[in-house]
Amino acid sequence: MDKRQKKRLAILDALSRSGQVLSSTRITELLIGQGMDISERSVRIYLGELDKEGFTESHGRRGRLITEKGKHEADASRVLEGIGLLSGKIDAMTYRMDFDPALRRGTVVVNVSVIPLDAFTTERLELIEMVFAEGYSMGTMLSLFSPGETCGSFTVPEGHVGVGTVCSITLNGVLLRRGVPTSSRFGGLIELRDGAPSRFVDIIHYDGTSIDPLVVFIRSGMADYIGAVTTGNGRIGASFREFPADSVETVRSISKQLEAIGLGSLLCLGNRGQSLYGVAVGPQRVGAIIIGGLNPMSIFEETGLRIRSGAMSGLVDFNNLFHNTELKDRLAALR
Amino acid sequence: MDKRQKKRLAILDALSRSGQVLSSTRITELLIGQGMDISERSVRIYLGELDKEGFTESHGRRGRLITEKGKHEADASRVLEGIGLLSGKIDAMTYRMDFDPALRRGTVVVNVSVIPLDAFTTERLELIEMVFAEGYSMGTMLSLFSPGETCGSFTVPEGHVGVGTVCSITLNGVLLRRGVPTSSRFGGLIELRDGAPSRFVDIIHYDGTSIDPLVVFIRSGMADYIGAVTTGNGRIGASFREFPADSVETVRSISKQLEAIGLGSLLCLGNRGQSLYGVAVGPQRVGAIIIGGLNPMSIFEETGLRIRSGAMSGLVDFNNLFHNTELKDRLAALR
Repeated sequence: MDKRQKKRLAILDALSRSGQVLSSTRITELLIGQGMDISERSVRIYLGELDKEGFTESHGRRGRLITEKGKHEADASRVLEGIGLLSGKIDAMTYRMDFDPALRRGTVVVNVSVIPLDAFTTERLELIEMVFAEGYSMGTMLSLFSPGETCGSFTVPEGHVGVGTVCSITLNGVLLRRGVPTSSRFGGLIELRDGAPSRFVDIIHYDGTSIDPLVVFIRSGMADYIGAVTTGNGRIGASFREFPADSVETVRSISKQLEAIGLGSLLCLGNRGQSLYGVAVGPQRVGAIIIGGLNPMSIFEETGLRIRSGAMSGLVDFNNLFHNTELKDRLAALR
Repeated sequence: MDKRQKKRLAILDALSRSGQVLSSTRITELLIGQGMDISERSVRIYLGELDKEGFTESHGRRGRLITEKGKHEADASRVLEGIGLLSGKIDAMTYRMDFDPALRRGTVVVNVSVIPLDAFTTERLELIEMVFAEGYSMGTMLSLFSPGETCGSFTVPEGHVGVGTVCSITLNGVLLRRGVPTSSRFGGLIELRDGAPSRFVDIIHYDGTSIDPLVVFIRSGMADYIGAVTTGNGRIGASFREFPADSVETVRSISKQLEAIGLGSLLCLGNRGQSLYGVAVGPQRVGAIIIGGLNPMSIFEETGLRIRSGAMSGLVDFNNLFHNTELKDRLAALR
């Protein structure tokens, strides 16, 4: 939505919420109060347009009243607010988390998958462990949510558990606190040949989608972790990000620090201005491929169980994470 | 990819394909021969940069040779060419088809789904007919491909059939031939309440994805046509497009003409500059919601059968389409 359209909708929204005749002075006050940068002169010009289009009607000096058509427009625009694009969610969660790798303290971002307790067969648990062991996951840690527990918008039903996989956005958050801005470009599916990444086979840009690309690839059955861990030929979910070229040493050292505490996610880091797996990178930037956090949960879909997953579902304290090899015992304790 | 990056890669590509030392004059000739607008002076400047970055090496007056690093860069960039975004594919297919609704002649764009012959149970066939009857499909027509037949990149295996559903891009193509340009913005999932569309619940922009949004929604199990046709509450795939506001009457009349011959797809058409289901539309445009062509095939996924579908897979002659109610008999003939 462009700025102009945003301001017009904000005016309609103010009139719709008040339900009364409002003067342009009052509307300007309300919008400035919401943090919008707008002059009374602009408000008057927009109101003139909205009158002509039948969204508002003039009540002389007293001001404007919203019409039925205008109310419909304002409602409709609020509906769209509900569909956030992933790029917005990434920034929001990056801002909210506060993990400090030096102190090993604070919250990390997790994806939550809700899975029936009896779906954790020995075969699936072994495959999940292999995904972690091969490094096709964000680090080596997990968290669990018991029935009745809540994480983000998920509440775990009876007979189920919530598996929290550390989301790779956690890297963005740690880097942000060290002054490094991350540009998260797209989620993609990388083809592995003999255990080595060869190319992106499909991509979805974060600023063009309301659902997480990795959730999509996994749920669509397009990912292939079983192939990846058993034969070295498969398709795994990853994210393409860019950092300022000057920050490359900071990115590298923080990635190493995170890896040492079980939160490694950097598959590869390019050179200044150099294309990475065929993706062109700007001259002042370096590209990076980051492993997707949700990846190990693909094993359920690949073995025929449809699961419900949410990317960037919520925050978990670092101290509540455990090593993935403990998953079996922790599940047994819940049964 | 920006223009600068494109030109740099074109230079590397020319050097890589020749495998020899090339002068800047020769490189300029080759690039102009490919339709690129570039001067010899620019080629020299880019070559200077590429030398410094180690992608090319100077052989004095004779010219430049590509290095191993440069070859790698050129190869990598060709890999990405393989991942086209949907917006490019939409334009390509719009250009290729040539259906003329007045003469009822020419080709239409189809999506192809490959389905085992024995998967067409009476229950599924009835549900598919209901999707067409309720108008949650692009028109009422279908085509079939027998085992061994090819459509686009699909070849139908033994024991299977290819079902060709008319792709809603066909509307773009017919409009283009009447001088109306279509801007295809995103594919989305629309929530139906009591049979009426209420809002978009998820969207993926065509210029940010390499896979068709509707294929994704259907394969991920996010669509709900069974709900849509049995209770009026469900989620159906649709596409958001924009037309020039001045063309609205042409769009309306062509849509009616297409509907009369079984190719209707227009769910709703907005007014000039008016938001549609919360999606803001520019002042000189009208928005439109177009029903997705692949929709009826969602019934297979919703009843537990994973199918392989390709959006905009190929072209089919209009005269090879038949009414969806004939599907049962046509399948029986193939068994």
